[in-house]
Formats: sequence, C-alpha cells, structure tokens
Amino acid sequence: MYEFILYSRKGHTSGNFSTLSSAGRLDTVYQCILTALFKSYGYRRDVIFHAILEGPPNPPLHLQVDGRKLERTTVDEVTWTRVLNLVLKGQKYLGISIEKKSFEVLLKEKQQESIPIFVLHEKGKSIMEVEFGPEAVFVLGDNIGLPKQKEKFALRFGEKISLGKQSYLALSCIDIINFLLDNYARTHFGISR
Amino acid sequence: MYEFILYSRKGHTSGNFSTLSSAGRLDTVYQCILTALFKSYGYRRDVIFHAILEGPPNPPLHLQVDGRKLERTTVDEVTWTRVLNLVLKGQKYLGISIEKKSFEVLLKEKQQESIPIFVLHEKGKSIMEVEFGPEAVFVLGDNIGLPKQKEKFALRFGEKISLGKQSYLALSCIDIINFLLDNYARTHFGISR
Repeated sequence: MYEFILYSRKGHTSGNFSTLSSAGRLDTVYQCILTALFKSYGYRRDVIFHAILEGPPNPPLHLQVDGRKLERTTVDEVTWTRVLNLVLKGQKYLGISIEKKSFEVLLKEKQQESIPIFVLHEKGKSIMEVEFGPEAVFVLGDNIGLPKQKEKFALRFGEKISLGKQSYLALSCIDIINFLLDNYARTHFGISR
Repeated sequence: MYEFILYSRKGHTSGNFSTLSSAGRLDTVYQCILTALFKSYGYRRDVIFHAILEGPPNPPLHLQVDGRKLERTTVDEVTWTRVLNLVLKGQKYLGISIEKKSFEVLLKEKQQESIPIFVLHEKGKSIMEVEFGPEAVFVLGDNIGLPKQKEKFALRFGEKISLGKQSYLALSCIDIINFLLDNYARTHFGISR
C-alpha cells in the first residue's frame, strides 16, 4: 500500500459547516482525497489517505480514507462536503474512519510497521533518485506547509524528498507521486497499479 | 504559452445551476482549471485553459481562462460555482471569457497560430519521448473521453500522446503534464516556469 498523510493545521474536527473552505480549509483535504484515491474509472485500491485535523473543537483527529473499501462516492466537492460532515458528526461511512490520534502517534505506528516514510520538502533528495518498494508513506503539509516542529518530528522517522523547484498545491503533489509510482511499479515490479 | 483544451460533452451553456456536477459535469471543468492554473502560491502565468461546452441550452460555447490575467480567485469548488455561474450568465470576470465557438474552429485557430497540438490518447506516443517547445496545446476529453468524431478531427491537426497505461482523471492528466513541462523547461530551456 501507498499512503499519504496530510497535516491540516486548521481543519475542523466537528461536522457543522456549510462549505469545506470555511471549515479550516477542509477543501484541501477533499482535493487530496480526490487525487490520492480516484482514477478515471474506479479507485486506487492500493492507497490509504490520512489527514490529521488540528482545528477546533476537538483536535487532533485522524481521518482515514481507505481505497480498498471505498464505494459509491463521486468526485465533486459537494458530495465530499456531505460525506465529511457526516463522518465528523460521528456517522459511519464505508471506507472512512475517524479517531482521536496525533500526527506523532500516527507516524510512530507507520515506523513500527516498517513502512518507509518520505517527507515532501523543497530541499529533499529528488524523488527521481528514490528507490521505492511496494509500501511507502508520504507526508505533506497543507496550504501553509508543515509547521517546523512537526517537520522536525517527521524527519526523525523519514527522509526528505523533493518534487523539484516548483511549489505545487498538495493535490498536485499527490497526482505527481501517483504518476511516478505508476511508472516505477511497472518498470521495477512489472505490475500495473 | 501552454494551453489545455477540455472537450465537455454535456457542460451547461447557461448560468442557472446550484452545483457544478448537476450542470453537465462542470465539476470536471472546475477541477481542470484548478490543476491547469494554480500553483501553491499564485497562478501559472504561462497557461491558458479552454473548455468547449456542448450542453444545453446554447452549445457550443468556448470558455477561456487566461493565467496571465487571473486575480483574486480561490481554489475551492464553491468559489468556482459562483464564478462559472456569473460568466455563463454573461457577466465579465477578469481573465475569463465566453464566446460562441466550436471545438473545430478553436483547433483550426491554434493550428493557424502554428502551435503544436497534442491529443491525449492511450495508444499515443509516450509523452516522455516528445520534444516540446515553448508553446503547445493539449487536448483532453471529459470524464467519458473524446467522442470518436472529435478525436478524428483533432488528429488531423495533432499528434497522439500518452501518459502511460493508467487511466487518469482529466485534472490528474493536467497535473502530470504541468509537472513534466516544469522539468522539461528547466532541463531544455534552463527556465523556471
């Protein structure tokens, strides 16, 4: 499995919002779900998306969207405003879960599972030079980036990697990584993701 | 300039909708505007996005979003629902224009401007082997793909290129092309886009 962890500084942790952008920029979370998990026809079954929400009233929350289980969702923001509202109100939704968990605890868990952790960073090693296996975790900041303290913590467990000189939106970073992994998996493992 | 042309079979051609997805999948148009024109901070000033809308009541319409002129828009779907409604009602909006024009006429114009035209196609030449200049037009289908007749027309003017075996959403295709052009421009022209 490939996993993306988005750190959302202000993403609201209860479901009482009319728009995602007014809920601590949950629109960024939606956009990342879109590019992490959706192909032209169907889902990426080998991807798990995580967001750590640090906004009011109940931070930190860990939102997980599991590509192995997702069904019957569409790609538009209106649908995901409804879905995220429901889930953050405590309702169940297939493939999506919420729990009280910090960024630090989530990263420690991934390390204990021996999954290589990569932290997107403009000064990192070029992603083109990284050797991937069948599992990897990619850590991204939201529209403001990772706070210094969180970045420092993540780098105790992971390696800095860079997508180049350009500064991309978080959803675009995920698209690019998925594309490179598609090619990498075909070239190195002979499989179609 | 780099240009993207999205052919939208059903995109509505008047501004009286509550959601983009109910307006002939204008959510796909919004998503492509997002990845064509937005970087982490600011706009891609070297990109023009076009959509040909073929839905009711007044097809075909040519929507153009010019990265050189865009100001003060945000990246969420709610904002773009408002913007596209306004523009399709005939109101002016900085950087965005609407005119009555067909897919065929738009492509002929690009050819007359001597801009190389590339048509995304699963059986095309790998994009990795294409030589780019400082200008290019990329033609994409919507969530259903290009109709056969439109594809045939486009291939009179352009070359088939492929992003690989994976079937990507239209917004992801644009992210991937922008990423590859970022690297190409740096390697071949020594410039940052």
